[in-house]
Amino acid sequence: MTHQHDTLSVGMVGHAFMGAAHSQAWRNAPRFFDLPLHLRMAAVAGRDEARVHEAATRLGWDTTETSWQALVAREDIDLVDVCTPGDTHAEIAIAALEAGKHVLCEKPLANTVEEAEAMVEAAERARAAGVRSMVGFTYRRVPAIGLARQLVADGRIGQVHHVRAQYLQDWIVDPEAPMSWRLDRSKAGSGALGDIGAHIVDLTQFITGDTIATVSGRLETFVKERPLPAEVHHGLAGSAAGGSGERGLVTVDDAAAFLAHFRGGALGVFEATRFANGRKNAIRIEVNGSRGSLAFDFEDMNVLHFFDGDDDSATAGFRRILATEPEHPYVAAWWPPGHLLGYEHGFTHQVVDLVTDIAAGNDPAPSFADGLQVQRVLAAVEASSQRNAWQDVPA
Amino acid sequence: MTHQHDTLSVGMVGHAFMGAAHSQAWRNAPRFFDLPLHLRMAAVAGRDEARVHEAATRLGWDTTETSWQALVAREDIDLVDVCTPGDTHAEIAIAALEAGKHVLCEKPLANTVEEAEAMVEAAERARAAGVRSMVGFTYRRVPAIGLARQLVADGRIGQVHHVRAQYLQDWIVDPEAPMSWRLDRSKAGSGALGDIGAHIVDLTQFITGDTIATVSGRLETFVKERPLPAEVHHGLAGSAAGGSGERGLVTVDDAAAFLAHFRGGALGVFEATRFANGRKNAIRIEVNGSRGSLAFDFEDMNVLHFFDGDDDSATAGFRRILATEPEHPYVAAWWPPGHLLGYEHGFTHQVVDLVTDIAAGNDPAPSFADGLQVQRVLAAVEASSQRNAWQDVPA
Amino acid sequence: MTHQHDTLSVGMVGHAFMGAAHSQAWRNAPRFFDLPLHLRMAAVAGRDEARVHEAATRLGWDTTETSWQALVAREDIDLVDVCTPGDTHAEIAIAALEAGKHVLCEKPLANTVEEAEAMVEAAERARAAGVRSMVGFTYRRVPAIGLARQLVADGRIGQVHHVRAQYLQDWIVDPEAPMSWRLDRSKAGSGALGDIGAHIVDLTQFITGDTIATVSGRLETFVKERPLPAEVHHGLAGSAAGGSGERGLVTVDDAAAFLAHFRGGALGVFEATRFANGRKNAIRIEVNGSRGSLAFDFEDMNVLHFFDGDDDSATAGFRRILATEPEHPYVAAWWPPGHLLGYEHGFTHQVVDLVTDIAAGNDPAPSFADGLQVQRVLAAVEASSQRNAWQDVPA
Amino acid sequence: MTHQHDTLSVGMVGHAFMGAAHSQAWRNAPRFFDLPLHLRMAAVAGRDEARVHEAATRLGWDTTETSWQALVAREDIDLVDVCTPGDTHAEIAIAALEAGKHVLCEKPLANTVEEAEAMVEAAERARAAGVRSMVGFTYRRVPAIGLARQLVADGRIGQVHHVRAQYLQDWIVDPEAPMSWRLDRSKAGSGALGDIGAHIVDLTQFITGDTIATVSGRLETFVKERPLPAEVHHGLAGSAAGGSGERGLVTVDDAAAFLAHFRGGALGVFEATRFANGRKNAIRIEVNGSRGSLAFDFEDMNVLHFFDGDDDSATAGFRRILATEPEHPYVAAWWPPGHLLGYEHGFTHQVVDLVTDIAAGNDPAPSFADGLQVQRVLAAVEASSQRNAWQDVPA
Repeated sequence: MTHQHDTLSVGMVGHAFMGAAHSQAWRNAPRFFDLPLHLRMAAVAGRDEARVHEAATRLGWDTTETSWQALVAREDIDLVDVCTPGDTHAEIAIAALEAGKHVLCEKPLANTVEEAEAMVEAAERARAAGVRSMVGFTYRRVPAIGLARQLVADGRIGQVHHVRAQYLQDWIVDPEAPMSWRLDRSKAGSGALGDIGAHIVDLTQFITGDTIATVSGRLETFVKERPLPAEVHHGLAGSAAGGSGERGLVTVDDAAAFLAHFRGGALGVFEATRFANGRKNAIRIEVNGSRGSLAFDFEDMNVLHFFDGDDDSATAGFRRILATEPEHPYVAAWWPPGHLLGYEHGFTHQVVDLVTDIAAGNDPAPSFADGLQVQRVLAAVEASSQRNAWQDVPA
Repeated sequence: MTHQHDTLSVGMVGHAFMGAAHSQAWRNAPRFFDLPLHLRMAAVAGRDEARVHEAATRLGWDTTETSWQALVAREDIDLVDVCTPGDTHAEIAIAALEAGKHVLCEKPLANTVEEAEAMVEAAERARAAGVRSMVGFTYRRVPAIGLARQLVADGRIGQVHHVRAQYLQDWIVDPEAPMSWRLDRSKAGSGALGDIGAHIVDLTQFITGDTIATVSGRLETFVKERPLPAEVHHGLAGSAAGGSGERGLVTVDDAAAFLAHFRGGALGVFEATRFANGRKNAIRIEVNGSRGSLAFDFEDMNVLHFFDGDDDSATAGFRRILATEPEHPYVAAWWPPGHLLGYEHGFTHQVVDLVTDIAAGNDPAPSFADGLQVQRVLAAVEASSQRNAWQDVPA
Repeated sequence: MTHQHDTLSVGMVGHAFMGAAHSQAWRNAPRFFDLPLHLRMAAVAGRDEARVHEAATRLGWDTTETSWQALVAREDIDLVDVCTPGDTHAEIAIAALEAGKHVLCEKPLANTVEEAEAMVEAAERARAAGVRSMVGFTYRRVPAIGLARQLVADGRIGQVHHVRAQYLQDWIVDPEAPMSWRLDRSKAGSGALGDIGAHIVDLTQFITGDTIATVSGRLETFVKERPLPAEVHHGLAGSAAGGSGERGLVTVDDAAAFLAHFRGGALGVFEATRFANGRKNAIRIEVNGSRGSLAFDFEDMNVLHFFDGDDDSATAGFRRILATEPEHPYVAAWWPPGHLLGYEHGFTHQVVDLVTDIAAGNDPAPSFADGLQVQRVLAAVEASSQRNAWQDVPA
Repeated sequence: MTHQHDTLSVGMVGHAFMGAAHSQAWRNAPRFFDLPLHLRMAAVAGRDEARVHEAATRLGWDTTETSWQALVAREDIDLVDVCTPGDTHAEIAIAALEAGKHVLCEKPLANTVEEAEAMVEAAERARAAGVRSMVGFTYRRVPAIGLARQLVADGRIGQVHHVRAQYLQDWIVDPEAPMSWRLDRSKAGSGALGDIGAHIVDLTQFITGDTIATVSGRLETFVKERPLPAEVHHGLAGSAAGGSGERGLVTVDDAAAFLAHFRGGALGVFEATRFANGRKNAIRIEVNGSRGSLAFDFEDMNVLHFFDGDDDSATAGFRRILATEPEHPYVAAWWPPGHLLGYEHGFTHQVVDLVTDIAAGNDPAPSFADGLQVQRVLAAVEASSQRNAWQDVPA
């Protein structure tokens, strides 16, 4: 809970890619938005003392801790921002909630449904004491995505018939790309499915305001073993058949695809892969409704394409909306029309929404329960792939 | 078989949309390509005498017949071009083959696997006598598609990991769009699946040189009954529950989606729909391989996008190849670079390839066996959808 | 004038690139459009007897002549279609008009303003006798261009402020590309300016319904001499300085650029070049008005982009209109929505419009006077470039 | 000059749009880049005490001043960042340089060539004492633009033949949009020409490594008087003819277009306008060379299109390079490939380059002399427009 002053003191656990992105957001949100609370970047925690010091200096945190437990225990911290790999989310977040800290937890909420369920329970217990929690699906905060959701909510595309979504990357298409923790099931939980598939599950549910009811999926691992980098010979999932110790087994999916039915009747087609050669971070979403359609591609993230079926047929066509107008979500705080935002701005908007909700005593979205629901969709895809059958997602 | 002269006399059955497209091809192929046989547009058959006369005049056929049987029986006809709805393909094509005529049959080869099998048998019997047969998957003859196949065959994209294909239309998204034979299972066999899904099955197999081994699919009918146009009250699949006689049951799928494994290991994701609001005839194909990628969209049909993974990473990017260079398939016969071809040119190229093979005594592709194989994929999708399970495609 | 029957007999002079495109149009127009006159492809004229015979057979003309004079003299010819290089247009067209033949003349109308003026005078004299004439700016007949003109005429973009147009090709960017008649001023009149610049002058005036009043231009010849192909050593503009006879002087512009004021107040920026590496036939036109904007690129010729300033600002954006709907100009005669047309279809539409006007006794557009006006713009650009000053275009 | 420690203390004058963008850069540069100097955001100056206090708090400046003179006089300031309108640049920058402060001055360098010349003289005098100066053409620091320059410098497009550049906005297309200081010649110097045309002059010269030698231009004011907002009745350029005092005269250009010759032989076509309906901030640059071409559009600012004429013609095509690879300028400091940067990142890169040069004792680019040269091009365009003639740019 927030102390009886108007400062929110933040402690962050982890300082790699996500830590840098979150720091940028905590640092910049108050510069562009009128926040109801003053932010203090109080502490960052990391296991290696030298590295966490360097990170604190570079990223702008006042102090450091070398264990997340120490950070969670600090009385001066109001909010814990969890930026570690998925296998540690549950333990840290639950401890923080129990210590009365608000929690922002990176996605995926956890590596298993069971962990996620425990986190939701902890969040609901804490909520009674005014403690807030949120899971970090930042792509929701891209203005073009927010506009998409508004248009659906306003009925501008009518009843949704089709949802198609792809998240395409290519960073391990080379079979000699080395093993990493992201390819190790014990650390990462899953591969493309949880890492990037989670985003398109969340985004399509967010945009349509609907949820996935049942899925038929397929996970694929194209390259089943990879060279071990010298320094990680020992933390990863065993060695290859030859026993030479030079290669590690890839224990997660390289790619995942699934069909889905949404509860409202839409037919979904999803694909997440790290093997789409030439596609670096292409999140593509298209939604077709009875009255219109929407299309988005993160490689051109400031643009939303909107087909308005009410336009007369001679002049109807997908409109290329540059979502940089003051009317578009979050945009008024930034630059004039036509001046593009980038990847990191979504994180800033996440901070804005979270801090606003904390100050107002509202529950932020997406909640841990929302994160759990995404997790259940992912688990259903995995089960479906194993069982070669459709799998329901618990409501 | 071809008579002992160098003229190929063609008789066409049906003169609606496909009949017009085929006529355009027979008429124009010799104007741009050096064909080994002289073409004669000898006869067109249709049931209504007045209408077939009008069609013959408009489309450029020398004579008319009011039954396909009469056309097939004519001694002066060397080749029968079947442009009727799918429920009549088997009967006409088999009769023509048995009469010693070469056959070009529109896709889908037939409405059922059984019919298609019978057609393949007839084609193989006729082949012994030098009679040729071909099924009309014309999109193969779009130059950008031919280029895509060449690049795969040349190894330019390496081993194929991903195939994603969509065929998107929107012509019945309005729930008050009326019933038609295309929505009646007894005439059309299936809906989006057979009508347009067949094309992306054929195209992706053609481009990759691979075949689909197993599928998990879902058929969907979003609008289950539709107003009957006055004139067809009686020919269609019964009337709606109310018994008023004003609405007919839609007995085919509005949309189909399926996952697939190719025999070579690629993961496929397919979608065909008539409910993609704002997409008129969007055939989109993307293929990701270990060495590169390809992407195509029929709404920009003269373009192939090619990512060459061998380019250095600072200057690599999808190349927008305008497939209008003389080096590209079929293009040298037409206009200078940058002067676009259209939808109908694929039909002309089909005539060129067919006539060339007939004259050379080669088997044209795609053969009836190829058409049957596509049919088997479609049947497997349908069975999978009914059984809620993966379904193998017989080899 | 048209004889007292309902057949229009056509004679074509020239059978190269333009001859092939025109033949395709004469052959196909009646297959898709209900024409008020029956067309007969009566004769084609060319100087080389063997080649003109081959062309007649290939392109579908009934008879041949080895001089245009013979063709013009034939009583059975109603219309002369002039498809020769620009230096012969005036002589042929005037003779044909004086012989009472309707004339379709390829663009540019002539190589000089003086010739074009004589042609206009001849056309006006002949008009009194019901003889029609038209200049062949076929790009006007691309459906997306026709739609653009309609939208301007309907006031959908308001008052026009900006016109920007580029015609980009690259076929002589290689300095070792050989000399040809198109690089010889005595044959071609000018280079990029007249060959392709003429098109964007006509198109922008057609779309806006306005005319160019004054220009400031610059012609550029980047490569001033080129290798002579063996067979043309003697017909071209002299030999290079060295006297070796191996290189010829390029006597036309490689590129032309000019600023323009339209009479209605719009500011125009034009560029035509054969040196835009990678651009094969890119005709790009953008028009900005007080109420909206239009954009077109021939490399995606079935599409018109339309910005409707009346859309609310949150959902405004350039609409990608696929100009393949039945409501769009010429389209209803062809294929269903989403089935693209190509380069050659503009020529077919030109035949349709011309024949319709002839039958109705109307004056076709663009008239010879329209062709002369374009010529005057080009001449003003050339004079401006020589004089380094703005140059008015006579009204 | 820099004090004998490793901190660079920055003072900024002005805190509107540019002040916010510069503040964001000063704040974030050290978070992502290893800078050789520690940055201190020491002071911001503005005339209104309340507003400058609010700005300092919001933008992150330690202290405030209510006059630029006070800021320049402060001993603890090492660098003055000039973010005011153009009519004050000369006075502030010259005073700062004379006080021994490094200067970063927003573009355009000044409102007149005379002022710019005085600034260059001051910069050169100060340079002898180790004081550095730079003009803020930030678009140079967009990674895709940096890549473009590299490719030209590496000879990848060969000899440059064509440069075409447009800067298109639409914020005053509504004739009832009110007067502002940007439409008042006494404050802004010029309109579209100096405000946005300056950018495309700088960018094209930067990318090509060449300079403009001579121009033929045209300035246009479509809407010659506009409503005066109540609060500015008295500061602007007089009242409209009617004398009612309700409208002010627009004394700058709404749009500017010009042809140009570069010293290296390229032909340039430029256009800058605030009347391109639907275009918000579209900076489009295309460069065609003997060996390849480049194309850029700021509305898709992370992308550079590159045509490599060395590719074989069957697979050549404009490559859509997503300039987010570590090999691309500035990118390695930010996010993984495919994670886009935005408008503001160019300002951060500008800080990085400037601070690096200051620490190393190098002259930053673009220098005040570079800014003056751009000013001379703009002045030549204006003179050309007035004189209706080509105008040379002094070397």
